[in-house]
Amino acid sequence: MYGKKVAVIMTDLVEDIEYTSPKEAIEEAGHEAVLISPDGSAVEGKKGGTFEADKSIGEVTPNDYDALLIPGGFSPDSLRGDKEDRFSKFAKHFLEEDKPVFAICHGPQLLVDTGLLKDRKVTSVKNVKNDLINAGAKWEDSPLTVCGNLATSRTPDDLDQFNAEIKRQLG
Amino acid sequence: MYGKKVAVIMTDLVEDIEYTSPKEAIEEAGHEAVLISPDGSAVEGKKGGTFEADKSIGEVTPNDYDALLIPGGFSPDSLRGDKEDRFSKFAKHFLEEDKPVFAICHGPQLLVDTGLLKDRKVTSVKNVKNDLINAGAKWEDSPLTVCGNLATSRTPDDLDQFNAEIKRQLG
Repeated sequence: MYGKKVAVIMTDLVEDIEYTSPKEAIEEAGHEAVLISPDGSAVEGKKGGTFEADKSIGEVTPNDYDALLIPGGFSPDSLRGDKEDRFSKFAKHFLEEDKPVFAICHGPQLLVDTGLLKDRKVTSVKNVKNDLINAGAKWEDSPLTVCGNLATSRTPDDLDQFNAEIKRQLG
Repeated sequence: MYGKKVAVIMTDLVEDIEYTSPKEAIEEAGHEAVLISPDGSAVEGKKGGTFEADKSIGEVTPNDYDALLIPGGFSPDSLRGDKEDRFSKFAKHFLEEDKPVFAICHGPQLLVDTGLLKDRKVTSVKNVKNDLINAGAKWEDSPLTVCGNLATSRTPDDLDQFNAEIKRQLG
């Protein structure tokens, strides 16, 4: 078995454990988590963690990755501010190609910008619930919402179920 | 002339100058800015400022205020997380009663939760543009967008025009 490559897109003020915990689950299952930041420099978490990036968004192509992880915190909002929308375009590929997408907390925010949430079942932190509904998604209050290859969770409290689903989908 | 009372709703990680600069403009024009935070405790800005609150959201009624100011940063997102939606309900009053509403940067985000943005002309920081469009607003890329009593701006760079409009509307 070959391990799968999971792209993790994030920037400063990420919710630390929404990166570190799924990353551990991905690696435990024999796969690889590749941290992609705006310019390839380290990411500073909300809780004080420093995470070395593997790649910058400018040097990657989504074709090289099997799945996508979007941790929450204030990171997804900042990714949406990218002048060339490189992160939402990157994420769009995974939804279009029906590759696994894992987004937790504020993570689903970034998916709004793909324009591909219509009629998809999702959950998220309460703060961005209305944005997902307005984007056409069917929002539900659930620790884990699975809609095809799209898996979403609400908060760090849901990480056990979120990580189990990541492992299930990656195999 | 009696000064008007402007409610300012914000919490931690507010963009400091989007509070301090309009507050100065409000006071210069002879009006009063009343800082309302979630529990009445001081607000810590993104840039390190500490701002003493005048009131908690639990002890105020929007009827007592003539206008509303929503500074940006990550504060509006956090206000949307309020379990009882007290901040969006508070803001809704001003739109319903056609009282002046001033929102800058991420500030308009909170207004999404009022459900009253349909067909309103607004601007904002790019990050939340699609959320405003999906909420039915007519988004434009402009330093200042005035739609009736609703005035919005994009970033701290637009503060001169934003503050001038605040002064114009408050008189």
